Amino acid sequence: MNSNLLVVGSVAFDSLKTRAGNRDEILGGAATYIAMAASHFANVNLVAVVGKGDFADEHVALLESKGVNLEGLEFAEGRTFRWAGAYADDFSTRETLDTQLGVFEHFDPKIPAAYQGAEIVLLGNINPGVQLSVLDRLKEKPFVITDTMNLWMNIALEDLKKVIARTDLLVINDEEAVQLSGELQIRVAAEKILAMGPGALIIKRGEHGAYLFTEETMFFSPAVPLKEVIDPTGAGDSFAGGLAGYMAGEGKTDSSTIKKGMIFGTAVASATCEGFGTEKTAVLTKDEVLNRYYMLLNLVSTD
Amino acid sequence: MNSNLLVVGSVAFDSLKTRAGNRDEILGGAATYIAMAASHFANVNLVAVVGKGDFADEHVALLESKGVNLEGLEFAEGRTFRWAGAYADDFSTRETLDTQLGVFEHFDPKIPAAYQGAEIVLLGNINPGVQLSVLDRLKEKPFVITDTMNLWMNIALEDLKKVIARTDLLVINDEEAVQLSGELQIRVAAEKILAMGPGALIIKRGEHGAYLFTEETMFFSPAVPLKEVIDPTGAGDSFAGGLAGYMAGEGKTDSSTIKKGMIFGTAVASATCEGFGTEKTAVLTKDEVLNRYYMLLNLVSTD
Repeated sequence: MNSNLLVVGSVAFDSLKTRAGNRDEILGGAATYIAMAASHFANVNLVAVVGKGDFADEHVALLESKGVNLEGLEFAEGRTFRWAGAYADDFSTRETLDTQLGVFEHFDPKIPAAYQGAEIVLLGNINPGVQLSVLDRLKEKPFVITDTMNLWMNIALEDLKKVIARTDLLVINDEEAVQLSGELQIRVAAEKILAMGPGALIIKRGEHGAYLFTEETMFFSPAVPLKEVIDPTGAGDSFAGGLAGYMAGEGKTDSSTIKKGMIFGTAVASATCEGFGTEKTAVLTKDEVLNRYYMLLNLVSTD
Repeated sequence: MNSNLLVVGSVAFDSLKTRAGNRDEILGGAATYIAMAASHFANVNLVAVVGKGDFADEHVALLESKGVNLEGLEFAEGRTFRWAGAYADDFSTRETLDTQLGVFEHFDPKIPAAYQGAEIVLLGNINPGVQLSVLDRLKEKPFVITDTMNLWMNIALEDLKKVIARTDLLVINDEEAVQLSGELQIRVAAEKILAMGPGALIIKRGEHGAYLFTEETMFFSPAVPLKEVIDPTGAGDSFAGGLAGYMAGEGKTDSSTIKKGMIFGTAVASATCEGFGTEKTAVLTKDEVLNRYYMLLNLVSTD
């Protein structure tokens, strides 16, 4: 197995407001977090779209400094996707203040020839119709990891169900699992969602950790108890990126690798929360990721 | 070390309403759950008060069948403590519908001579002034495990602080930790609470598991993901009882024993949630406790 990870998703500018302060139009977007998180473990081949006029060289340079392959980053006429949000002081809820899709509205992902043959693909949280077109454009069937959100359950459920049926590992949060399954208990929700097709399901619970469910196994990875949370934006994407990157780097998709990948994903996600947007993720070292990984293993050790 | 656990707390009749149904005036009270949970691991010496007229022989027989020593169970003139509550469908909140203190209002715990010399005492959630009087009446200083609640932080904070200063292991939930410390991040809250005196602090997070904090260590025990929750009443008490009972049975109070005790406590607490009141706890076998214990160890194993 090669150690290339194909990542498809959004690159954006985010305006963020939390109890710790605020930032205007800083680099964000699911694919950005995913790519940065995965870059600690694997070669990342990015497919995304940004605005020709407003996506600065410094952002390109940052992603390239992480070793992210940008051959699939399309520069289109128009403005880069923008999102603005504000979090409650306890981070339990967030309010979307503004969304400007820009060039992302007509995102039609093209897969460069050099990206074909990826054995793992991570479909970031985008329109399920676009996720389907990505799968249709891959010449060989990869191991498919899919992220999504409640928005698509509300407005594109049929397409989403098609994506899920073609997914090997679905990564959603607990509210989404409840909505998708109609079940309040996540263990029952997991059974129903696994019956929709994916061989494995991760249900994220934010600061409360994440569960893995398969036919054979159930696993829980705790979160890092943080002394300070600056901004949780991108934590879920960082988790998925660390997970998928670790799997690609190891060249394995068995459940033990997924479990360890969840802990690496948690390690990166915890760092993401300690800065605004990608500010902390951008400077995170592999040593710090490893330190957090071993801290998390130790956190559940009864020794 | 002997393997006796001294338990002081409430015995009550609870009226319970959840999405799964309801029950009227069934056996409950913190000390009841604690004693039943601890009885799997240790000799339990109970100190509590019930009403002479309404506490039936069947309740005495049930506790005795668990091997609970009832020499310290006082039968006073009046009615046994009654509590009525109703839970939201997602169990995130509960409403107290009625509280009748009865004989519990003037509970003045007497320690039988045979109970003296206990090396571990668990002070259930009662008025901190009463908790202090228990400590004053013990001839030898035991390892003190204390439970409490936000009510006492509101109306008896000075006494509660005195109890905490004499506590070795404080067991509270996350909301109580936030209130007691004035800190939103539980890791920071834990630092402040440890500075109040206890050598160890457990912060319970319900279905999200529990943290242990000491000067030297941080540990997380996950909850059992349940397929069905009938009634969470007494889960926190069952957790504390299983924990304290395991420690007493092992005759150890080091942090590795506390960690394993938290997992045993979680095992019993998960069963408590699968029946109304003490209905499931009353018929729980040691084998089932052990099965859940190993399931919980396995839940965090990356193998």
